[in-house]
Amino acid sequence: MPMIQFRSRPGILDLGWGHPRPELLPVEAWAAASAAASREFGWQQLTYGDARGPAPLLDWLTAHLGDSTPEQLFVTGGASHGLALVASLLAGPGDVILVDSPSYHLAFPIFTDTGATVLRAPADADGVDPAALAEMLDGPRVRLLYLVPTFANPTGRSLPPDRRRALVELARRTGLTIVEDDTYRELCYDGQAPPSLWRLSGGEGVVRVGTFAKTVAPGLRLGWINADPALITRLATLGYVHSGGGVNHSVATTMYCFGASGAYQRHLDAVRAEYRRQRDALVSAVREFLPVEAPGGGWFLWAALPPGVSATHLLARAERHGTSFLPGPSFYVDGAGGDDRIRLCFSQLPPADLAEAAARLGTVLVSPR
Amino acid sequence: MPMIQFRSRPGILDLGWGHPRPELLPVEAWAAASAAASREFGWQQLTYGDARGPAPLLDWLTAHLGDSTPEQLFVTGGASHGLALVASLLAGPGDVILVDSPSYHLAFPIFTDTGATVLRAPADADGVDPAALAEMLDGPRVRLLYLVPTFANPTGRSLPPDRRRALVELARRTGLTIVEDDTYRELCYDGQAPPSLWRLSGGEGVVRVGTFAKTVAPGLRLGWINADPALITRLATLGYVHSGGGVNHSVATTMYCFGASGAYQRHLDAVRAEYRRQRDALVSAVREFLPVEAPGGGWFLWAALPPGVSATHLLARAERHGTSFLPGPSFYVDGAGGDDRIRLCFSQLPPADLAEAAARLGTVLVSPR
Repeated sequence: MPMIQFRSRPGILDLGWGHPRPELLPVEAWAAASAAASREFGWQQLTYGDARGPAPLLDWLTAHLGDSTPEQLFVTGGASHGLALVASLLAGPGDVILVDSPSYHLAFPIFTDTGATVLRAPADADGVDPAALAEMLDGPRVRLLYLVPTFANPTGRSLPPDRRRALVELARRTGLTIVEDDTYRELCYDGQAPPSLWRLSGGEGVVRVGTFAKTVAPGLRLGWINADPALITRLATLGYVHSGGGVNHSVATTMYCFGASGAYQRHLDAVRAEYRRQRDALVSAVREFLPVEAPGGGWFLWAALPPGVSATHLLARAERHGTSFLPGPSFYVDGAGGDDRIRLCFSQLPPADLAEAAARLGTVLVSPR
Repeated sequence: MPMIQFRSRPGILDLGWGHPRPELLPVEAWAAASAAASREFGWQQLTYGDARGPAPLLDWLTAHLGDSTPEQLFVTGGASHGLALVASLLAGPGDVILVDSPSYHLAFPIFTDTGATVLRAPADADGVDPAALAEMLDGPRVRLLYLVPTFANPTGRSLPPDRRRALVELARRTGLTIVEDDTYRELCYDGQAPPSLWRLSGGEGVVRVGTFAKTVAPGLRLGWINADPALITRLATLGYVHSGGGVNHSVATTMYCFGASGAYQRHLDAVRAEYRRQRDALVSAVREFLPVEAPGGGWFLWAALPPGVSATHLLARAERHGTSFLPGPSFYVDGAGGDDRIRLCFSQLPPADLAEAAARLGTVLVSPR
């Protein structure tokens, strides 16, 4: 039985995993926050919590986010858990959930687990196309549209402002709910991230899922949902949420201490600088042999392969040369598309290793086999 | 917004809440385990965990439980979460879930959340009646039978050995799955707890849900499921479990340290002694005016009221006299039954307060209004 999800493969500098670089996890600072939470809250950290999450964290998050009220917040066990909760409340067998193409591949099973049918939303290089989407809404029971509109996984791109406004307007008009996965918002490297759909919507037609997995640590299993107060009440009154006293009370109180002490902002500033260096290292190394857009945030490059090169075929050769990645088709719910693209993740390796991984990939691309 | 679930009401010594006594929560020992886990596992405590739970905890639990293999284990976010996971995989709209009568009331919404119909299992004073149950299985699509067979909530009773064997046998023969909520097993006050249905079944036809909520702390949101390896694999490959790297990785690694250091056993011995004193205090105080069985474990007395006294009517009067409880009908899924019973919880108050609460209740029972 393993301890963690990551599997190291000897000799391979792996650009496939969307995991944090171990050295950038806040081991000491989180331990200090744990000790502080124990001193500050005592037994109240260890008993049944409020179903929405503990008030101190809700208040801190409200101030930190700046675009929601405590009544629009629910503390989750991470973004994936948030997606599962929202999808199970708003969709089921007979319904359709649309997902961006390409989009975060591990979200697809979360949606299919509800029994709904998961289909591609119409999209072009800029992301989901609001006009084409509007036509789809006349047909089957489309309940949800799932998007990572900001520093997307896998493309690193952000949805243009006019599309954001058009999608928010479409949701308001039609009753479609947009599920905005805002995981990468705070990992921005070149100025501000674009305004969230949640903010643009004023809380109507959009549910936002946030997480501390990338900004603090995935192992915490802690995130939040922004939604209208009626949906928040439905979440808080789910049988197991009510019975359990919230979903991750002790970690949530520790997160409050991590945030309120200033440790969160210090850590975020530090990892932002490091991930920016890692992005720059991988972008410049890949540009030696492939054109690639530098993402303004997040963890991923979405590189276009030379004409005639299949991502799927390239993978085995790359692994023989000591590197790896995820091929484009993984990110299409029907597997059709993206074979001219590869996702390269720069989060897990330091700059020198990223440059070496890219060099190996470049070797594969110019070598005959 | 509140921090915790418990609401203190001035002037009321409340026997209604199934919550731990604050002084018995291991604030210092858990903080020490957190620090130890941070030192021992470093970044591996903070990254994505294995979907089943971290190997160190699985191994410790395997040894501690003594009746399952690591392949039969899945780490949950508490017993309620475990019930929700199992119910959502094994039942849905069109199915029937049977629950003991009376049984843990907050489990009922967990089961109705699946869309299944939740009905009373045939039961008498000894618990579920296997022969009457067997007849029900010919009818609708009965998928699950939910039981707290050991030191039950609300009765404090344990299912007799012959019924345990008969139910396990019935499940094996019919394909019914028994969901055994084993929350109170380790809170035994007079010798050993009876063998679990899980153990008797050899892992066939029974899924066991366990938790650290009562033995360590509810705020951890940590428990486990014992099931056959095929169901464990289904749990571990749920979309959000896989995507998130398990459901509570950092707390699970801390629990490993709490267990392996011996802190768990020391704490369990200490709280067992305290809860035994609390049980004895409440039992002897209540026996001044009502006959009541002393439960061999768990947190609850299930007291029979004098003939003609309604639990529901008694509640308002009791609260005017400064005490409270949960009336029996709460524990029947159809609300029909138990109005001659009240559940008195002895977990949350020290002995002197329990005696005073009982005295107030006794006053109400002899006073005309």
